[in-house]
Amino acid sequence: MTVPVLEAKRFVLQAMVAVGTVRQHAQQLADVLVTADYMGHYSHGLNRLEMYIADIETKTTDPNAHPAVLKESPATAWVDGNNGLGPVVGNFCMQLAIQKAKAAGVGWAVAKGSNHYGIAGWYTRTALEHGLLGMSFTNTSPLMGPTRAKEAALGTNPLSLAAPGKNGDSFVLDMATTAVAVGKIEVQRRKGEPITEGWAQDPEGRSTTDADLAFKTGCLMPLGGSEITSGYKGYGLGLLVETLCGILGGSAFGPNIRRWMEHTDRPADLGQCFVAIDPQCFAPGFNDRMSTLMDYLRGLQPVDSSKPVLVPGDPERNHMKMVDQQGGIQYHDNQLKASAALAKRLGITPIEVK
Amino acid sequence: MTVPVLEAKRFVLQAMVAVGTVRQHAQQLADVLVTADYMGHYSHGLNRLEMYIADIETKTTDPNAHPAVLKESPATAWVDGNNGLGPVVGNFCMQLAIQKAKAAGVGWAVAKGSNHYGIAGWYTRTALEHGLLGMSFTNTSPLMGPTRAKEAALGTNPLSLAAPGKNGDSFVLDMATTAVAVGKIEVQRRKGEPITEGWAQDPEGRSTTDADLAFKTGCLMPLGGSEITSGYKGYGLGLLVETLCGILGGSAFGPNIRRWMEHTDRPADLGQCFVAIDPQCFAPGFNDRMSTLMDYLRGLQPVDSSKPVLVPGDPERNHMKMVDQQGGIQYHDNQLKASAALAKRLGITPIEVK
Repeated sequence: MTVPVLEAKRFVLQAMVAVGTVRQHAQQLADVLVTADYMGHYSHGLNRLEMYIADIETKTTDPNAHPAVLKESPATAWVDGNNGLGPVVGNFCMQLAIQKAKAAGVGWAVAKGSNHYGIAGWYTRTALEHGLLGMSFTNTSPLMGPTRAKEAALGTNPLSLAAPGKNGDSFVLDMATTAVAVGKIEVQRRKGEPITEGWAQDPEGRSTTDADLAFKTGCLMPLGGSEITSGYKGYGLGLLVETLCGILGGSAFGPNIRRWMEHTDRPADLGQCFVAIDPQCFAPGFNDRMSTLMDYLRGLQPVDSSKPVLVPGDPERNHMKMVDQQGGIQYHDNQLKASAALAKRLGITPIEVK
Repeated sequence: MTVPVLEAKRFVLQAMVAVGTVRQHAQQLADVLVTADYMGHYSHGLNRLEMYIADIETKTTDPNAHPAVLKESPATAWVDGNNGLGPVVGNFCMQLAIQKAKAAGVGWAVAKGSNHYGIAGWYTRTALEHGLLGMSFTNTSPLMGPTRAKEAALGTNPLSLAAPGKNGDSFVLDMATTAVAVGKIEVQRRKGEPITEGWAQDPEGRSTTDADLAFKTGCLMPLGGSEITSGYKGYGLGLLVETLCGILGGSAFGPNIRRWMEHTDRPADLGQCFVAIDPQCFAPGFNDRMSTLMDYLRGLQPVDSSKPVLVPGDPERNHMKMVDQQGGIQYHDNQLKASAALAKRLGITPIEVK
C-alpha cells in the first residue's frame, strides 16, 4: 500500500485546486504536507488535508490571498498573511528572512493573519539550501496547561532550528514545546493502553495515565512534565514561542486562538516567526564544526546497542530513505479510504496506490 | 545573617581587585554575581567567586583583557573575548547587539574566547532597559548525557529570553536545558534523600534516584528526562544552544570544553550568543499584549490554591522583594565562613553582616 511521493502531491494539488485554490498556492501546501509524511510525521501530512479544505469551503481561509509586507528594516519584516494558506505565508516570510540575512547577516520576519503552516522544519530546511541557519516558530490553538494551572492556555507552540553540516548533512530540531503531541495520546487510547506520567492532565490538573481521560480533557503538559521534573521550563519555552509569534506579530495569541478541530468560521489569525542567520558573518568553518559535533554524538556509546545515539534530523532522514527504497509512502488503510471519499466528493482522480 | 546588596558587591569588587583585576572589570563581575544571589539563584552568585579567583591566580583567565570585534555586518558581530572575564565579554556583546538592533531591527553578537558569564538572564534584562527583547545562550562544561548515550557530551547550556511588558513588568525565561542543575542533586545528597526519576543517569546510562551515585556519575538528563517523556527534545535544545555558541563562534564546544571544577590551566574558551530585537519593527503595542498574556496566565485557576500560576521572572521578582524587605541577602553560614577565609587570605575587609 505505497503511494509515490509525486502521486501524493498530485492528489493534494488537485484537491486544493478543486475547491478554488490557484495552482501555485495549492502546490505549496502539497509540498509541505506530503514532505511531512515522507519524513514520517504523519500527524502533519495528508491526514490534515480535509481540515485545510474545510477552512476554504467555509471561507474561513482565503486560499488565494497574498501576504503583504507592513513594515521593514534592514534585518526585519512585519508581514500580514491576509488570512492566506499557512505555507504560502511561511514560504514568503522565510524567503524574506533569507534575503535579509544575505544582506544584513540576520533576517527576522514575523507574520500575523496566517493559518496552520504544517511542519516548522519545512521552513528552516529552506535556509539550509542557501547555506544559512534557519529558525521558525508558530503559535497554535490552546492545548497546554501552564505549570500549576488547571486548564490549557497556550498551544503546542513548536520551534525549529536547522543548521548545515558538511556534505549535505544537517542538524534539524523540530519540536513541540509540550511533552508529547495529542496524536501520541490518541494512539494509546485506540490501543486501550495507559499513557506515561507527565504527558497530560486530568480535569483537576493532576498528571494522569488514563489515555481516554487525557484525550477528553485536552490539556497537555509542557516538556518536562510536572513541576518537580522542571515542567515550568517547557511552559517557559511555550511562552517564548508565543512571545516571538503572537505578541511580536500582533495576531491572536494564547487562549484567544480558536480551536482548529472545532467548527468555526473565525479565521485562525496565527502568528509565525522566521529567522535566517548567515554563518559566514561569524567564525569560518561552521559546517565542519557542525559535522564534527554531530559525528561525535552519533558515535557515543549507546545504553542499548540496538538504539544508536541520533542527532535531531536523523529520524527524518532514515524515514525518507525507507520511503525511497519502498518506492513510496505507506499510508494507513483508513487514510486511503478517507482520501478516496474526498476524491469522489471533489470529482478528482483518487490516489493511485502502487 | 543578612548582607546588604551593596556590601556583597563591595566584597566581590575588592576581592577581584586584590588579585589584580581593574576596578571597572571587577565591578562587572560583582554586579552579575550578587544580582544572582539577590534573585535567589545562589548557585550562580557569591559561591562561585573563588572559582573566578582561582582562574585569575593560575593565569587561566586574563581579568584585564578587552574583547575585540573580529567581523561585523549591519545586524551581526563576531567577537573575540580574548580570555577575559565572562561578564566583561557578555556586557560588551550585549551592548553591541542592542546598538545593532536599534539600527537594523535585530542585533546578533557571538563571542569565542569567553569565560563563565554568570546568569544568562543578566544580559537579556539589559535589553529590557532599552525597550528591546533580549536573548542569550552559553555553552558550558560537558555534564548532560544525550538521549540513549552512556556519557555526558554537552553542557547544561542555558538559554534566556527577556521581553518587556507594561509598567516595568517583564517575562524573563532563564533556564538550563538539562532537567535540573547539579546543585539540586547536591542538596538531596546532603539531606540523604533520593532524587526524582528523570534528573540524572547512573554509570550504565539508566535513570537513577540515588543522589550519591548521580552526583558521582556527573551525567545529567536533558529537560524531559527519558526518551519516553521526550528527553530527546531537551537534548535537541542543548544542541541548539551549542550550535548558536561554540559552533557559530568557533570556540571550544561540546565534549572539548574543560570541566570548570577540575584543576586546569587550560582557558575555558567558551562560546556565547547575544541577541537583541526591537519590537517597534513589528506590530505596535508589544508591551500591552505581553502584559495582557502575563496577567491572564497569573490569573489562571491553580491546581493548588496555595501555589499561584507564575510567569517566568516572577520567582526572581518575589525574591528581590523579600531581600529588600529584609534589608539584605541571607547567606548560608558556610558561605560566610568561606568568604571570611578568602578575605583573610587576600587581605581585604570581610563581609559585614547586618
